[in-house]
Amino acid sequence: MGTAGVRPQASAGVPEATDDPLVLLARAEARLAQLLPPLPIGETGVLVDAARSALLSPGKRARPVMAMLACAHVGGTSLSALNYGCAVEMVHAASLVLDDLPCMDNAALRRGAPTVHRAHGEDAAVLSAIALLNQAHRTVLSDAALGAQLRLTLLDAITEAVGFDGLAHGQIRDLRDPADDRTEYGLRRLNHLKTGALFVAALRGGGLIGGGVPAQLDALSTFGEAVGFAFQLCDDLHDVQATTQALGKDVRQDRDKVTFVDLWGAGRVQTAIRQSLARAQEALGADCALSAYAWELFRNAGFTR
Amino acid sequence: MGTAGVRPQASAGVPEATDDPLVLLARAEARLAQLLPPLPIGETGVLVDAARSALLSPGKRARPVMAMLACAHVGGTSLSALNYGCAVEMVHAASLVLDDLPCMDNAALRRGAPTVHRAHGEDAAVLSAIALLNQAHRTVLSDAALGAQLRLTLLDAITEAVGFDGLAHGQIRDLRDPADDRTEYGLRRLNHLKTGALFVAALRGGGLIGGGVPAQLDALSTFGEAVGFAFQLCDDLHDVQATTQALGKDVRQDRDKVTFVDLWGAGRVQTAIRQSLARAQEALGADCALSAYAWELFRNAGFTR
Repeated sequence: MGTAGVRPQASAGVPEATDDPLVLLARAEARLAQLLPPLPIGETGVLVDAARSALLSPGKRARPVMAMLACAHVGGTSLSALNYGCAVEMVHAASLVLDDLPCMDNAALRRGAPTVHRAHGEDAAVLSAIALLNQAHRTVLSDAALGAQLRLTLLDAITEAVGFDGLAHGQIRDLRDPADDRTEYGLRRLNHLKTGALFVAALRGGGLIGGGVPAQLDALSTFGEAVGFAFQLCDDLHDVQATTQALGKDVRQDRDKVTFVDLWGAGRVQTAIRQSLARAQEALGADCALSAYAWELFRNAGFTR
Repeated sequence: MGTAGVRPQASAGVPEATDDPLVLLARAEARLAQLLPPLPIGETGVLVDAARSALLSPGKRARPVMAMLACAHVGGTSLSALNYGCAVEMVHAASLVLDDLPCMDNAALRRGAPTVHRAHGEDAAVLSAIALLNQAHRTVLSDAALGAQLRLTLLDAITEAVGFDGLAHGQIRDLRDPADDRTEYGLRRLNHLKTGALFVAALRGGGLIGGGVPAQLDALSTFGEAVGFAFQLCDDLHDVQATTQALGKDVRQDRDKVTFVDLWGAGRVQTAIRQSLARAQEALGADCALSAYAWELFRNAGFTR
């Protein structure tokens, strides 16, 4: 059947253990660049070009960093947590490309640059999202350091977060649900589908790779759910309050949608973000690297513990 | 991580062995309908509705039938070949939805009915393709009758046929390559990416599930490559010669593209179809069910052995 088409690690050794998010961020950036094909020469390079720009444009890499921290949290050290986290990041990047399409949010700007369909054409944008999702699978499939059953479990976690019970479902609901369906319950479910599910996949998968026991995996899931909820709330808040220049992406995208900001007002949303981060910290303990990282992610938005 | 969300077989037993394509077609139709979520009630049913119409609209089901025949060809009998063939059919259905999009071929009609984006909206079309690809993975992942390593190998076969070296690459080349790049070599490669690769995945995968040895798997690959080439040639011919009504899909879609009909003329294309089917038959032997099925697929187009 051929190989999975993913280039091997530059270094085969296990990297030095660290819980420094900046070091883990740098490792994620380097590995992501390796996991896509290099830019070919000629016209049909547009597919790789679009996929590389979607995946490698500046980002927080919260999902790979959290996958690595989750692996370390349960006592594991493994390059596979880096690979798996990068696979989750590919899914995330693909979902942003699709969200931005003219037939969805019709966004012009993402991460401070033109969106993929604006830069490379709509056909290349759609196909690069397909190729990124596919490469996420190939990244996990080809990780020979993982047992076969574990690879299947990780792929189950990723596919659970993508399809009829995941991102695709969340996105169509976000686009199509009538405004009066936006109750607190409905919005919580929507936020889970659009953000929480993939955070949980990153954290639980990282914990699985590290050899975590069920109670540890469940705590990581609770943490991921809570941080994902805080992320989505912060996004909703920014959409209303920030400027396009400061945010690097289109704002007022949600003007026709009901979000928690409409439902609760900005003040209560800020309180809910703090409560979510506190709940995340409670799941894993205050003095662990994941809890510190969660607060760090929200520091620029004005939230400190 | 939850289950893979695929409903179990209605009957757990191994079905009676048969190489009757009509019986296998009926089994594929029934199983495909089981492998997607049922239609939910309410607005957000549009995702499932779009995916079900894309997958369950009338079709030849050549890929699942060939996967089952390939399994039987090497002496196997397995419900897993049916499941795997259905997974390949999901990938095929997703690729048709995407090909038809306004930003690609902008087709109005497919299989005698409005294309998915015309019937359900462009957003639902794109997301249903994502969900179908994802469900293809979940179908293989959740087939507990297969060993873990075999499931990984089958997923490797599917993902090899989809991404940067498969359908996505073929589609962007088809849309973007300049006409003067359309040499015989280039067109053969394009046809492989757009059609042959998934035929090979269906046949080789079915052979693997049946326990085929490497020489048998290679012969199945040769067969799939040859039948896939004949399929694409026949499609090119129909695009020029048939009417929309007779074909049930838009014709003259290739008017701005160079195909083998432009390169060779209709007469030589017809000869090449016959030669390809003969080469397929040669790979497996004249008196096997797969060879008979290959010729049967082309009988309505006027090709007989």
